[in-house]
Amino acid sequence: MKIHETALISKDAQIGRNVEIGAFTIINAGVSVGDYSTVGPFCELGVPSTNSSVSSLEIGSRSLIRSHSVFYSGSKFGAQLNTGHRVTVRENTIAGNNLQIGTLSDIQGDCLIGNYVRFHSSVHVGKESNIEDYVWVFPYVVLTNDPHPPSEVRLGVTLKSYAVIATHSTILPGVIVGSGSLVGAHSLVAKDVVEHTVVSGVPARYKCDASTILLRDGTGQPAYPWRKHFNRSYPVEVTERWLDET
Amino acid sequence: MKIHETALISKDAQIGRNVEIGAFTIINAGVSVGDYSTVGPFCELGVPSTNSSVSSLEIGSRSLIRSHSVFYSGSKFGAQLNTGHRVTVRENTIAGNNLQIGTLSDIQGDCLIGNYVRFHSSVHVGKESNIEDYVWVFPYVVLTNDPHPPSEVRLGVTLKSYAVIATHSTILPGVIVGSGSLVGAHSLVAKDVVEHTVVSGVPARYKCDASTILLRDGTGQPAYPWRKHFNRSYPVEVTERWLDET
Amino acid sequence: MKIHETALISKDAQIGRNVEIGAFTIINAGVSVGDYSTVGPFCELGVPSTNSSVSSLEIGSRSLIRSHSVFYSGSKFGAQLNTGHRVTVRENTIAGNNLQIGTLSDIQGDCLIGNYVRFHSSVHVGKESNIEDYVWVFPYVVLTNDPHPPSEVRLGVTLKSYAVIATHSTILPGVIVGSGSLVGAHSLVAKDVVEHTVVSGVPARYKCDASTILLRDGTGQPAYPWRKHFNRSYPVEVTERWLDET
Repeated sequence: MKIHETALISKDAQIGRNVEIGAFTIINAGVSVGDYSTVGPFCELGVPSTNSSVSSLEIGSRSLIRSHSVFYSGSKFGAQLNTGHRVTVRENTIAGNNLQIGTLSDIQGDCLIGNYVRFHSSVHVGKESNIEDYVWVFPYVVLTNDPHPPSEVRLGVTLKSYAVIATHSTILPGVIVGSGSLVGAHSLVAKDVVEHTVVSGVPARYKCDASTILLRDGTGQPAYPWRKHFNRSYPVEVTERWLDET
Repeated sequence: MKIHETALISKDAQIGRNVEIGAFTIINAGVSVGDYSTVGPFCELGVPSTNSSVSSLEIGSRSLIRSHSVFYSGSKFGAQLNTGHRVTVRENTIAGNNLQIGTLSDIQGDCLIGNYVRFHSSVHVGKESNIEDYVWVFPYVVLTNDPHPPSEVRLGVTLKSYAVIATHSTILPGVIVGSGSLVGAHSLVAKDVVEHTVVSGVPARYKCDASTILLRDGTGQPAYPWRKHFNRSYPVEVTERWLDET
Repeated sequence: MKIHETALISKDAQIGRNVEIGAFTIINAGVSVGDYSTVGPFCELGVPSTNSSVSSLEIGSRSLIRSHSVFYSGSKFGAQLNTGHRVTVRENTIAGNNLQIGTLSDIQGDCLIGNYVRFHSSVHVGKESNIEDYVWVFPYVVLTNDPHPPSEVRLGVTLKSYAVIATHSTILPGVIVGSGSLVGAHSLVAKDVVEHTVVSGVPARYKCDASTILLRDGTGQPAYPWRKHFNRSYPVEVTERWLDET
């Protein structure tokens, strides 16, 4: 266990075995950090929440939280959480295993996130979002929730498994993006996206079936479903299962 | 008064009564923090400015500045300033009471901001912006100012009272958005917006009068003017006045 | 030399003459900071990289790195690097002299950056980007690299000398923006941009030759080439050469 001497760790936090904690990091009461995890410098974990009845924050084992990140109380993450720098995660975020949250991403809380989800840098996840397993979201994407801002109405976005949202796109309130679909870069998505299709534009319209896009790597193989050719940072048991699918 | 022992407070700063200051926060000379305010950890207030003749920074009473935020000298805020994490506010920002600045927002300075203004996360406010009372601005909105970048010409944006700019929109230099108007998500606004109307698109065009949009809460009431149904985080004297308006 | 007493400086870092280092900043082994440079508080320089064979980080002389910034090992910067707050620079970023990186910008690494390049706030530079001298990039611009995300294919963006990318634009993988061209705000650029032209829209299309846009400063002079009227923050030897060009 390597806890930097300048870190401020509450005596009511639970720090697992072989955990590393960086300089100047603050870990408040009610936080548990799983075994073999690393928390970088300048973080604060367990910021007290006024909007949650839950005062704990659970970080699964073998996680990596990079510097300057802020997590509120009232959330729970499975094993192998991996964040960039300066992420913000508000209360009532419930996530599965192997979530990646890129640098500067801002998770507003009150949301469900599946297993093996990938948020690249600067992703904004509005409250009431529901994100299934193996989803990818790229920089400056916004998942909205208020159909006529400002109001108290919350219609969260749903991203089904294996969906991909390319950079700089906005998903309007209540939209469901179907499994395996691709939202092209810089799109405004105002209605549901049929599974395994590609939409793009402002507003986004159907462009083609995802399976008709070919990899620009010289092989001429289909680019989608992406899990047939892309396996970086997934465990072997997942990628072997993908290859066995027919 | 609870000032963390690791905070670095200049002897030439003025700290009001019952102020809390978090761990590792730096407060420089010339800063005044009003009574009953809280400043989170990892902040720096009063960064010396080379572009301002004013060396002071005034934070009104009952304010909350969250962690990792940076404020330059040469700005002034009324009571009840409330910020998210990692906001940046440059010199010559003059703001009224009850301003909210969301996480990661970037206020470039040389701007005027009224009372009860709401910036959500990741709002970019260019120099020479003029923002009236009760305005709302949502994530990844950019208020520009240079009509042919890069140049020394500055044509700031004006947002009139009660205007709402939805997420991911860009307002071009010199544009005036009228009182009570709504700019839809992901729009590029190149010309002035008539008051109480809705515009959207790239470039943005007139869509409808704001009053024709209905709340999606089952009541069938109009969604605009929003102050007739939305009152979260405003003081009672404001919201009672709104309800009394005819 | 003014190194704050709370800064954590590795004995294997090389700190030049007359360097200032702010409170709570971490400088790791293998970092060299050039003479007369300033590093603000809450930074970490030389974050160990798992993706680079180079364990050093070189910051040229007379540089200014503002607070809360993070630089990985494996990069090299010429003299007079100037950053905003909270920038992130990953490994294998090779940059010339007088680079400006605005607040919250996110440089993903594996990229080449020329001399006198200007990134405003919140610029996202994808891997394999190639940015020539005197380029300007404005807030929330994304330089992408993956033609069918997620994949292992990398087609970086090229921005030729004096090109300007206005705010909130996305440049798709492999696109080349020609010398002296302007991409208008809020555009999606899907194909190469001819030099000295203006493109805009979603998708971006040719609008006019850059030289036909006039300065809105009352002079009626052309706004482009911008180097004929704009010289802020460049050294005199550069701006005199620009004026001598015919």
